[in-house]
Amino acid sequence: MIEPVRHYLEKDAADRLAPLMELLRFPSMAGDPAAADRCARWLVDYLEGLGSSSTMIETAGRPCVFGSWETDPDLPTLLVYGHYDVQPPDPLEEWHSDPFEPVVRDGMIYARGADDDKGQFFIHLLAVEALTRVHGRLPVNLKILLEGEEEIGSPNMESLIAAQREMLSADSLVISDGSFFSDTVPSILSGLRGLCTFEVRVRGPARDLHSGIAGGAVRNPVNALCRLVGLMHDADGRVTLPGFYDDVENPDAVEVASWGKLAFDPAAHARSCGVDVLAGGEKAYGPLERMWSRPTLDCNGIAGGYQDAGDKTIIPSRASVKLSTRLVPRQKPAAVAASLERFVEQNTPAGIESTVVRGAAVRPVLLDIASPAVEAGKKAMAEAFGAEPVFVRCGGSVPITEMFQRIMGLDAVMLGVGLPGDNLHAPNEHIPVRQVLGGAVMSASYMMQLGAGGV
Amino acid sequence: MIEPVRHYLEKDAADRLAPLMELLRFPSMAGDPAAADRCARWLVDYLEGLGSSSTMIETAGRPCVFGSWETDPDLPTLLVYGHYDVQPPDPLEEWHSDPFEPVVRDGMIYARGADDDKGQFFIHLLAVEALTRVHGRLPVNLKILLEGEEEIGSPNMESLIAAQREMLSADSLVISDGSFFSDTVPSILSGLRGLCTFEVRVRGPARDLHSGIAGGAVRNPVNALCRLVGLMHDADGRVTLPGFYDDVENPDAVEVASWGKLAFDPAAHARSCGVDVLAGGEKAYGPLERMWSRPTLDCNGIAGGYQDAGDKTIIPSRASVKLSTRLVPRQKPAAVAASLERFVEQNTPAGIESTVVRGAAVRPVLLDIASPAVEAGKKAMAEAFGAEPVFVRCGGSVPITEMFQRIMGLDAVMLGVGLPGDNLHAPNEHIPVRQVLGGAVMSASYMMQLGAGGV
Repeated sequence: MIEPVRHYLEKDAADRLAPLMELLRFPSMAGDPAAADRCARWLVDYLEGLGSSSTMIETAGRPCVFGSWETDPDLPTLLVYGHYDVQPPDPLEEWHSDPFEPVVRDGMIYARGADDDKGQFFIHLLAVEALTRVHGRLPVNLKILLEGEEEIGSPNMESLIAAQREMLSADSLVISDGSFFSDTVPSILSGLRGLCTFEVRVRGPARDLHSGIAGGAVRNPVNALCRLVGLMHDADGRVTLPGFYDDVENPDAVEVASWGKLAFDPAAHARSCGVDVLAGGEKAYGPLERMWSRPTLDCNGIAGGYQDAGDKTIIPSRASVKLSTRLVPRQKPAAVAASLERFVEQNTPAGIESTVVRGAAVRPVLLDIASPAVEAGKKAMAEAFGAEPVFVRCGGSVPITEMFQRIMGLDAVMLGVGLPGDNLHAPNEHIPVRQVLGGAVMSASYMMQLGAGGV
Repeated sequence: MIEPVRHYLEKDAADRLAPLMELLRFPSMAGDPAAADRCARWLVDYLEGLGSSSTMIETAGRPCVFGSWETDPDLPTLLVYGHYDVQPPDPLEEWHSDPFEPVVRDGMIYARGADDDKGQFFIHLLAVEALTRVHGRLPVNLKILLEGEEEIGSPNMESLIAAQREMLSADSLVISDGSFFSDTVPSILSGLRGLCTFEVRVRGPARDLHSGIAGGAVRNPVNALCRLVGLMHDADGRVTLPGFYDDVENPDAVEVASWGKLAFDPAAHARSCGVDVLAGGEKAYGPLERMWSRPTLDCNGIAGGYQDAGDKTIIPSRASVKLSTRLVPRQKPAAVAASLERFVEQNTPAGIESTVVRGAAVRPVLLDIASPAVEAGKKAMAEAFGAEPVFVRCGGSVPITEMFQRIMGLDAVMLGVGLPGDNLHAPNEHIPVRQVLGGAVMSASYMMQLGAGGV
């Protein structure tokens, strides 16, 4: 029964993908309210065109887009979540084509958001189109919620979900905002890491000083910041913030053993990351644990003093670093943030003032993978892509996952269709056309199984 | 005999200073060849106008300006050195007026280069003008050499001096490129620190990676750079580069004792630097030693990853830091540079590539302060400013000083007339008008003493 859907999607694939290409043109970063707004309005219209009743939901930040197809009160209801905001595109000079002028090259769609997440939530809209054209109606009641602030940690979703529980109520939840385990092995997530972000700012002298005249007398804020950040890890890669690992719950032996059976090649993975060796994280753990079940503390950016060509021999007045820490189950963002703030305070030397500005705070999550909905997801993936999915975790964070679980009791079925080399959050982000079309087949198959009952 | 000169200078001071205001308009950074060239040509013309035979001397970088007044072969010859290049003016937003639109406010000339060094070498040109007008001719044979690359470490002066020994030959050398010990206490330098600059560049993944997906697997170059820089000092502020202190020659007890008698107030000095405490450098030494006779290692600027507003949760591809180390007598720039390169290599972790780019290399210098020329300088300062100068060292570097000593056997008499709060290398650089006019009186007095013989 899926073949007519597949045929519809693949026959005139360029036509099917045309609306996605349009969607990818919006530079809908959460930091650009005007662009986000234009993108959200376009999505409302597009969902209407697909037969839903749709609306924009205002938040304290960027708006959400919501659409609903009420097919039959006797059918189960599926909620799809996605996000239309994208990461900033810089460094622009490393892109081979404009990040907001999508192009297809060698079977890949290149654009900021092609994988994360416009190209992935679009598979469910393609499935709606195909199922409606082929079968006249959807096999489920469908709701879709598209957020505009996922990349900045979904600061307004907790209150939105709490306020809109009725509107969002569903029997199951599917999210496609992740990737296959490898190019040929689909995967379903059993957990995701959380996230805290910070900016640490240090201030030394009131103005830049001559490094000869003041050097040795005045404490240098860039040196102090480097020392401070350097002290945050020990020589074995362990984070030294007091209590950082206290709440870490190790994955059970069965889960760790299952990771050992995955066809994971560290050398190939290193190559795909553009490094010669996977040398990040804690020496005491293997790379999959370090990515999935161990927390991290990374600098995302640092700035201070003179950055142009040549020398300027100053003691800079100030410096700052952006940090992100990925958290694992049962770490608590508030406890980690407090520990980092104490650490910064205690390791700020005389002559330097420091401040910590908190950014995102996302809890880690473990998902139920023993449900009928997950079973349907497995079958849909196998049907669409011709390979059995494996269960893995994701080192990244999809904040909404934990909120849906905690507030609505819905464990997301995480059916990501990106590939590991898609360059998300990086220059030349892309997604293979076959993953978008295959993803649409998967989504249609998944809805058909849910609608057929037993799930 | 100095009073008519003083009268000439002070009577129509604004007219006397008008050419300096013109000179300060050139944005003659060593990194801007066109602006440096325009400034050098203006200076050649100006020296001609003052009665010298003058010329531009090309180098591999910015040109030098040379002028010569051959008064009488029986008179001694004085060589004046100065530099017309200036530090870059950024951060521009912290200037209260345009750095290249000089203005006089509250008795101060504000402009980039007002103190360092256009305003200071200009005192000798004012002295030439005044002596010529008042006495009809100079009391000495005079030569002046104005460099265009002092702020980048005088990379072309060593070969120029070696090649032009005949042209530059002189009985004594005076340099005004420094400051009083305090606002009311003039000083003459007995030594200057040297300088090495470096840029350390680190590279991790070939492109920015998602900090969730790669975090824990891929080594972060910003973290690695912070750790590397943090390791360059111990907790007591000592530089940890192997062998860094090996060649340090401590000042003798007499010199250190003389510093103990200076009216130095650490709290007031801290205030003038805009910090609450003088906490830089090695704990084991007092602030004057830390500034004058102990070497330092300072970050001048650092950059890597995402620096704009908000979060971008990446593992950056690369990062870099600019470093300057101030060297004291008998440290050798080449040995320090080699030690830093080894240190960087040995402390670069797996997964990171590092490179060190060497910049300036300036040797430290000790100057003879027991000569008749220095005695004349003391008298000239006392006559011009009404206060006896003290002997101090300078934490900064005037590369030419060491080259003149080594290549030509000339120990510079360092008669700086700036004040400690003049903001050199910083926003709102300025010099008091009274220091410029007083400096011109001092220069005239100095030339008259030299010309009167016995020096």
